[in-house]
Amino acid sequence: MKLDITLITLCPDWDGNSFGGGEIMYDLIIIGAGPAGLSAGLYAGRFRLNTLILERVSAGGQIILSSTIENYPGFPAGISTTELIERFKKQTEDVGVKIEYSEVLEISLGKDQIYNIKTSEGSFDTRSVIIAAGAQSKRLGVEGEERFLGRGVSYCATCDGPLFKNKDVVVVGGGDRAIEEALFLSSYAAKVTIIHRRQELRASKILEEKARQNLKINFVLKSVIEKIIGSDRVEGVVIKNRETIAESILSCHGLFIFVGLVPDTQFLKNLLHLDESGFIITDENMASSKEGIFASGDCRKKGLYQVITACAEGAIATNSVHNYLMNKLGG
Amino acid sequence: MKLDITLITLCPDWDGNSFGGGEIMYDLIIIGAGPAGLSAGLYAGRFRLNTLILERVSAGGQIILSSTIENYPGFPAGISTTELIERFKKQTEDVGVKIEYSEVLEISLGKDQIYNIKTSEGSFDTRSVIIAAGAQSKRLGVEGEERFLGRGVSYCATCDGPLFKNKDVVVVGGGDRAIEEALFLSSYAAKVTIIHRRQELRASKILEEKARQNLKINFVLKSVIEKIIGSDRVEGVVIKNRETIAESILSCHGLFIFVGLVPDTQFLKNLLHLDESGFIITDENMASSKEGIFASGDCRKKGLYQVITACAEGAIATNSVHNYLMNKLGG
Repeated sequence: MKLDITLITLCPDWDGNSFGGGEIMYDLIIIGAGPAGLSAGLYAGRFRLNTLILERVSAGGQIILSSTIENYPGFPAGISTTELIERFKKQTEDVGVKIEYSEVLEISLGKDQIYNIKTSEGSFDTRSVIIAAGAQSKRLGVEGEERFLGRGVSYCATCDGPLFKNKDVVVVGGGDRAIEEALFLSSYAAKVTIIHRRQELRASKILEEKARQNLKINFVLKSVIEKIIGSDRVEGVVIKNRETIAESILSCHGLFIFVGLVPDTQFLKNLLHLDESGFIITDENMASSKEGIFASGDCRKKGLYQVITACAEGAIATNSVHNYLMNKLGG
Repeated sequence: MKLDITLITLCPDWDGNSFGGGEIMYDLIIIGAGPAGLSAGLYAGRFRLNTLILERVSAGGQIILSSTIENYPGFPAGISTTELIERFKKQTEDVGVKIEYSEVLEISLGKDQIYNIKTSEGSFDTRSVIIAAGAQSKRLGVEGEERFLGRGVSYCATCDGPLFKNKDVVVVGGGDRAIEEALFLSSYAAKVTIIHRRQELRASKILEEKARQNLKINFVLKSVIEKIIGSDRVEGVVIKNRETIAESILSCHGLFIFVGLVPDTQFLKNLLHLDESGFIITDENMASSKEGIFASGDCRKKGLYQVITACAEGAIATNSVHNYLMNKLGG
């Protein structure tokens, strides 16, 4: 159902011509083209909002760091993350929403509630904004982590796993992502050791079972990494048992770190209400602390970080944008 | 990834044997097998919670009253609602969750926070409950509506549309559902008249455009139906213009009513905090006013009623159940 229509703004007689030097006035700019941003774009296109998605690197967000996804409803056999993102992207582009590849540097509020978004490729004026900028892997914060980055230390098994064929690797973390990545790595590595600070994993039981049944995977629980050792590349890690305080050295060639998320919200520090970790605080309609700015996906403070929740939040954010613009225009 | 494992309860040594007369103690019972319930079940199966889904009629919920869905992310060409539900169902059953077809009559709280669910087919004990019971079409509340039900009055175009081949039909409502159904009906009917109480539709612009470009579809706006007339079957409707107060008669053979939702929550009236329309009030983690009972989907009070939001809420509710059971067990 490819639509070949000229997009019109929600309100063509909007008196915003004085802003943006006569350039396009968008109804909505979405920052980020991961699941949340693409879903927001899909709904925006269907509402016929004049919408632009700004993406820094490439569509997909964090999810493409995993190879397949099994828990997005609608794909009983699972689906590769790149295919799922391609589907999201096509569906959004088919309703007339464009993705522009540039990095957002600053958002500022001008006259009459118009936001100006300064990017690496120019600036844009818009009546509303949805931040769907996502998040990145959290650093472990131990000695050797920066030094060995790209030389054994990695935050992406899909990217770097194949480099560790028949080698020993360590995975740090106990959530879904860590266990999924350990399972993925087991098809390359000779041995995968999962190190987790607690006795219990946070990951879903189905993943834990798969990992426990996998002969290549071992667990070192109630333990943390003290430092990463090696000369040119990673050669091992120093592990401390949190109960006995005993330290030991585990030889390995690679270290994959999955201990949480840091939201990509640095550029919003002085604009929006963020929590202490930088996640955007919104209400249930995805409204941020600033009128006309909404947020969805991994950059948002919430209870569950999944593709299905990111997509729903994108839809909700756009619905809120629609209500907001309607109310502003006195509809 | 069909799994053939024996489900174990989260805590096999749970001291709940005194409940349910030695029968199965479930970790989680989900009421309703629409998108919200099936997604909750998918996540529950992956958490390895001993889970049962109870469904009154058949899997799918309200969505199967529409023929296709275009705005569920992941299907750029759209997908038939029956196929989407089949996919949801397979994915959920593949992780070991069963659906039992029986109607829930009552939920009562027993000792030690165990809920007993009385159904038409027997009763079940469970440590937690997710209500995903959905909603039904709201009645218009005008003369003739009950009398002509099944004789021209319908709440489901997919079900009854084919009966009105080359006939004139009226659609009441201005939301997405009403316009989608009008478009669907236009492939059968000779003429479709959409009657809506306001000047502006609530439906997304993409649907409105399609309807306005459809030569079979007319709009009668700022108008309401006063009564439905006919002898044996619907023969017409009396329409009142809300501005001029003028009344007129429009001949038609069918009347399709899409003016909102009534949640299926009658059986919860004395148990949970509901709003004045009967929607379940929850927090952002889907927790209801009763410890151990959660809700998701169309039966919940919220801002946006879509398949994508129902699925996300199902996932969130199950994640909350998991946290709740873990905390109860002192994890």
